[in-house]
Amino acid sequence: MTGGVAAPRPIDVGVLGATGMVGQQFVRQLAGHPWFRTVWLAASERSEGRSYGDVAWRLSGAPPEEVRALRIDACVPGRGPRLVFSALDAAAAAEIEPAFAAAGHIVMSNARSYRMEPDVPLLIPEINPTHLGLLDAQRRNRGWRGAIVTNPNCSTVVLAMVLAPLRRFGLRSALVTTMQAVSGAGYPGVPSLDILANVIPFIGGGEEDKIETETCKILGDIAGSLVTPHLVTVSAQTTRVPVVDGHTEAISLAFDGRPSVDEVRDALASFSGEPQALELPSAPERPIVLSTADDRPQPRRDAGAGNGMTVTVGRVRRCPILDIKLVALGHNTIRGAAGAAVLNAELMHAMGRLEGD
Amino acid sequence: MTGGVAAPRPIDVGVLGATGMVGQQFVRQLAGHPWFRTVWLAASERSEGRSYGDVAWRLSGAPPEEVRALRIDACVPGRGPRLVFSALDAAAAAEIEPAFAAAGHIVMSNARSYRMEPDVPLLIPEINPTHLGLLDAQRRNRGWRGAIVTNPNCSTVVLAMVLAPLRRFGLRSALVTTMQAVSGAGYPGVPSLDILANVIPFIGGGEEDKIETETCKILGDIAGSLVTPHLVTVSAQTTRVPVVDGHTEAISLAFDGRPSVDEVRDALASFSGEPQALELPSAPERPIVLSTADDRPQPRRDAGAGNGMTVTVGRVRRCPILDIKLVALGHNTIRGAAGAAVLNAELMHAMGRLEGD
Amino acid sequence: MTGGVAAPRPIDVGVLGATGMVGQQFVRQLAGHPWFRTVWLAASERSEGRSYGDVAWRLSGAPPEEVRALRIDACVPGRGPRLVFSALDAAAAAEIEPAFAAAGHIVMSNARSYRMEPDVPLLIPEINPTHLGLLDAQRRNRGWRGAIVTNPNCSTVVLAMVLAPLRRFGLRSALVTTMQAVSGAGYPGVPSLDILANVIPFIGGGEEDKIETETCKILGDIAGSLVTPHLVTVSAQTTRVPVVDGHTEAISLAFDGRPSVDEVRDALASFSGEPQALELPSAPERPIVLSTADDRPQPRRDAGAGNGMTVTVGRVRRCPILDIKLVALGHNTIRGAAGAAVLNAELMHAMGRLEGD
Amino acid sequence: MTGGVAAPRPIDVGVLGATGMVGQQFVRQLAGHPWFRTVWLAASERSEGRSYGDVAWRLSGAPPEEVRALRIDACVPGRGPRLVFSALDAAAAAEIEPAFAAAGHIVMSNARSYRMEPDVPLLIPEINPTHLGLLDAQRRNRGWRGAIVTNPNCSTVVLAMVLAPLRRFGLRSALVTTMQAVSGAGYPGVPSLDILANVIPFIGGGEEDKIETETCKILGDIAGSLVTPHLVTVSAQTTRVPVVDGHTEAISLAFDGRPSVDEVRDALASFSGEPQALELPSAPERPIVLSTADDRPQPRRDAGAGNGMTVTVGRVRRCPILDIKLVALGHNTIRGAAGAAVLNAELMHAMGRLEGD
Repeated sequence: MTGGVAAPRPIDVGVLGATGMVGQQFVRQLAGHPWFRTVWLAASERSEGRSYGDVAWRLSGAPPEEVRALRIDACVPGRGPRLVFSALDAAAAAEIEPAFAAAGHIVMSNARSYRMEPDVPLLIPEINPTHLGLLDAQRRNRGWRGAIVTNPNCSTVVLAMVLAPLRRFGLRSALVTTMQAVSGAGYPGVPSLDILANVIPFIGGGEEDKIETETCKILGDIAGSLVTPHLVTVSAQTTRVPVVDGHTEAISLAFDGRPSVDEVRDALASFSGEPQALELPSAPERPIVLSTADDRPQPRRDAGAGNGMTVTVGRVRRCPILDIKLVALGHNTIRGAAGAAVLNAELMHAMGRLEGD
Repeated sequence: MTGGVAAPRPIDVGVLGATGMVGQQFVRQLAGHPWFRTVWLAASERSEGRSYGDVAWRLSGAPPEEVRALRIDACVPGRGPRLVFSALDAAAAAEIEPAFAAAGHIVMSNARSYRMEPDVPLLIPEINPTHLGLLDAQRRNRGWRGAIVTNPNCSTVVLAMVLAPLRRFGLRSALVTTMQAVSGAGYPGVPSLDILANVIPFIGGGEEDKIETETCKILGDIAGSLVTPHLVTVSAQTTRVPVVDGHTEAISLAFDGRPSVDEVRDALASFSGEPQALELPSAPERPIVLSTADDRPQPRRDAGAGNGMTVTVGRVRRCPILDIKLVALGHNTIRGAAGAAVLNAELMHAMGRLEGD
Repeated sequence: MTGGVAAPRPIDVGVLGATGMVGQQFVRQLAGHPWFRTVWLAASERSEGRSYGDVAWRLSGAPPEEVRALRIDACVPGRGPRLVFSALDAAAAAEIEPAFAAAGHIVMSNARSYRMEPDVPLLIPEINPTHLGLLDAQRRNRGWRGAIVTNPNCSTVVLAMVLAPLRRFGLRSALVTTMQAVSGAGYPGVPSLDILANVIPFIGGGEEDKIETETCKILGDIAGSLVTPHLVTVSAQTTRVPVVDGHTEAISLAFDGRPSVDEVRDALASFSGEPQALELPSAPERPIVLSTADDRPQPRRDAGAGNGMTVTVGRVRRCPILDIKLVALGHNTIRGAAGAAVLNAELMHAMGRLEGD
Repeated sequence: MTGGVAAPRPIDVGVLGATGMVGQQFVRQLAGHPWFRTVWLAASERSEGRSYGDVAWRLSGAPPEEVRALRIDACVPGRGPRLVFSALDAAAAAEIEPAFAAAGHIVMSNARSYRMEPDVPLLIPEINPTHLGLLDAQRRNRGWRGAIVTNPNCSTVVLAMVLAPLRRFGLRSALVTTMQAVSGAGYPGVPSLDILANVIPFIGGGEEDKIETETCKILGDIAGSLVTPHLVTVSAQTTRVPVVDGHTEAISLAFDGRPSVDEVRDALASFSGEPQALELPSAPERPIVLSTADDRPQPRRDAGAGNGMTVTVGRVRRCPILDIKLVALGHNTIRGAAGAAVLNAELMHAMGRLEGD
């Protein structure tokens, strides 16, 4: 990774919920980061005091060398560095994240707890960097010295990336069927007896509702301290499939503007945003890549595109019912979780939003 | 299996393409059948003369005892019994099936070659038994003493079963995303390197087109010797998933009549047809079963319902874009192939259509 | 299933731990049994009072019709019928099973807790029916009116079935590498993130030790109230593989008697025991079947042989280091758990051991 | 990759059989290599003249940018550069490789065809770099200006790497059960219907024989132009499991010298060879890494260690029958194929064996 913005000295960062599956993904995502240096790892009391290198590592390989000796701390506000990434589950996040924000921490949260709060940015840097403008209201409303900034649900982000460049065509509705990887459910997550050689046509925790509502907020316009949700109607059917990483989404779209297939392809392929302009370290060269092969994108072969930050789209064609159909794929634990939050923090740093109190 | 129609002596049947994957499914499906007795197995010249018990058996267990000693014959018209089941691939079927029909055989075909011919029944006994009326025109047009009767593509049948009882609500469009099992691709079929822990968003051989066109013919009305296709618009996105048996379909539906969710549920659950009325041996007690659990139907757990002949439906609810969405599942090699053809033959026997020349 | 021993009226049976994965397997195994009728289902207090039909069913299909209306009771000794099958986990079994035995119940246990107790039969009816002779000592030693009879670990049973008929050749050592299905770990069991497209070379809970010790007890001789373990040395390496049902075992064997490959094959193929002689309802016609194909046995295709009660053996050949190597396969939740315990109970009934107080 | 040996200008290399699965692995392995530059890609006549970028790419992502524009040539001796990597299958290799060697090419072959020829090095640079001494005899015997150098079968290499450092203890026998990934079978390779949720206890093409014989040659001593095979007896049982990359091997070992578990662990962990001493670009820092976790090595999590060139070993412990047992894992398409051949070429370059005519 190389970044376009000079970082004279590394910025210390911490991870809340560092021992869980998502926490481990944060730790790996931050390893060797050109701007950020992981100096603080916090988890539940059960792990307190252990060396991070002794934690049961669920990802491939072993924990990064640079954090193996770190002692795991408790999630106590004020203890870690100003910038913390939160891999807490929703219940823990609901309590702990505001306490950290109140104590002056910038919390980059992957939890769903505050995503839909009117004064909390639900950020995808390519799409809605201006939503960081909500932070002023957030601090005013809540009296926090710090802040909470969230990234979307791992399925939402893939859909929103596809829809963003297509808003210009009068986007009216998006019907999506997801085929989601098991890593999206954390650890232990999905029992193998449920998913081996099987499909589960349901994902708990309000997955479909998240996709249907988060998308509209992400694509919405901000005016003052108010985000007006985009009016696109989203209908989601989520399923779990026996895939390790990468959410695949079959999407049908209706537009008021009746774009041609080629216009849609061009809009997707030429999509670019602030992360690309600012050359943020985690930004993929192209946020969306169009597959030319008929049988792509495929999660096992394409989820890693752009170091897991590129959304791959294929099979763009007419839909006989709505207007256009296509297949999109994104890496759910990178673009859909840890990479998303890190990119958010990079954007904030590049915009002077991290240091700016 | 018990049949409601007396079968004083067994009817001899044969299988064309008996050594391939689909052929083996026919052989297994016919084993122990109360009306039919497998007496003739034909395949390509490569296998001619071998004992059927020596063929590499791809299904679970071993070939049925009753056919192990049968010598494999060549696919020569006139050699086998009057009623033959065809497991030939499309290219072979295009040539061989009409030759058999011309020679007086009744060919129950699983191939796609003649499904869309105007004078060939594309039969699902619960839905369109009257389409057998096309046979008179077929014989007249083609000068055949025998006949070709086809069953639908393995994904089409699941969709058509769901749509049939919903036609009464003014069915207008059906948008379907399939997640199809590898057994649908035959043997050797899908390479494991393509599908292990993966999803392939494309199925060759015109799969999506088959679903979009066959469905309309199946649901159509017959008048004289003409089937008028149903006007429902179908949009299909097919995918392959690492599942052994059972095609899962996420379906969204639009209706002119705006039925309630409960009306749709009732129409599905109460669906029944000629196979049930006639108590055909392969007919499931209920052609459609509604799942009550949120996370069903699942291919590994539900494809076997009704001995593989029942379509299981779950998650019936409002669709914010079209009207209703739901998930349906059927066993692709039983209800979608061998079981379908056998049920077709049972219907013809019960209606006096097998003997009737 | 048909039984060779008349059962004038059904024997009432219960299941301890009926809501868990193994408990559900017992319920399914007992459904439609010609001798036993499931009248009592017990589980932890959390489930008490609910209808069994409302339990989350983990197996394929749905709970058997005949037990759906049963109210779940607590595991309180004295409440259920005399004969109870125990699907309790080891910790619960250690406490609850002796309480039931003391209260007069015959406990057919699948738990490991009492398997290695000197006065508890570790029973495989084809191998050591005489070990039921331990029950007199058990009652004397412990003052129980009832009894505990155990079946082996799900990997042990496959190995022991293979070794039993080969003892005659001076069996000296058995080196086994297992490839075990996820259903052997119960529910939720193995996280899908651990096992999708992966192998785990370790199974907790002392799996290897169980195989190495239980086997010797099972193959041992009984004299009076003492079982002398067989002197075979067993070395086990257990692994978990992404398979649903069926444990595969690669086995190398050393013998003092240097049998030929054909002698070993003949001994395996001709193996038979009391269950076959007595025509017990769950007894497979042949306890061991030899595969002729090079690439069998395979768990997905062969685990169901003999309704899951047959062990399939293939690839019998010389081992350049020990004497003979082969591959064996058994259904871990049927022959290795629920089916094993039911067969044990059938044997006891046929030998007059159930009624005999 | 960084190399310890200066490479003033890149060495041109070609790939025979470049469009197949193994060929694609070679192309990927060579992409960005510090010494070698891929300038020539050859395949069967069917592909001749097409751009390499248009070939159906079976690996993750897309073909390397640097080779996309290369025109595919026919496998005609004399056309490509001096150094060619052969990804040909055995039948093609048997004919084509000697023609290339005769024409002056150095053929680094992954095929089995010439591995066991007495005058052909079967090379693992950490183990037997001196076997390159066979090349003089090879040229003399065969009148070739070029040469054939082979790497072992993908399962053999894992076993040989484990055995090499243990020879000092009087290694007598090695009993191995493999659990092999599907990528070892090429493309289309293993049908998904055979391997989804299954184990196949057999691998064709003489897999077990290769492991049993190649290992002895690799571990043998060279004197003059003769390699005397090591006397270790190897017994192999190979199986295929539903894993994408990484062969897992359960190994039991007997020694005359009765080493302790710790001595074995130390010998493995401290193993190092010429590639490490010469700092060859593809050499892993440590050829063997010992896992500390009980449940490792696992193919999905550990096959990538050392960029796929490290063999990971775990669970080293006493075997009650032989002396020591352990589990080993290596990446079958990198350390077991393309990476192996590239490392061989690097060794030859560093030893002046590439340029030396």
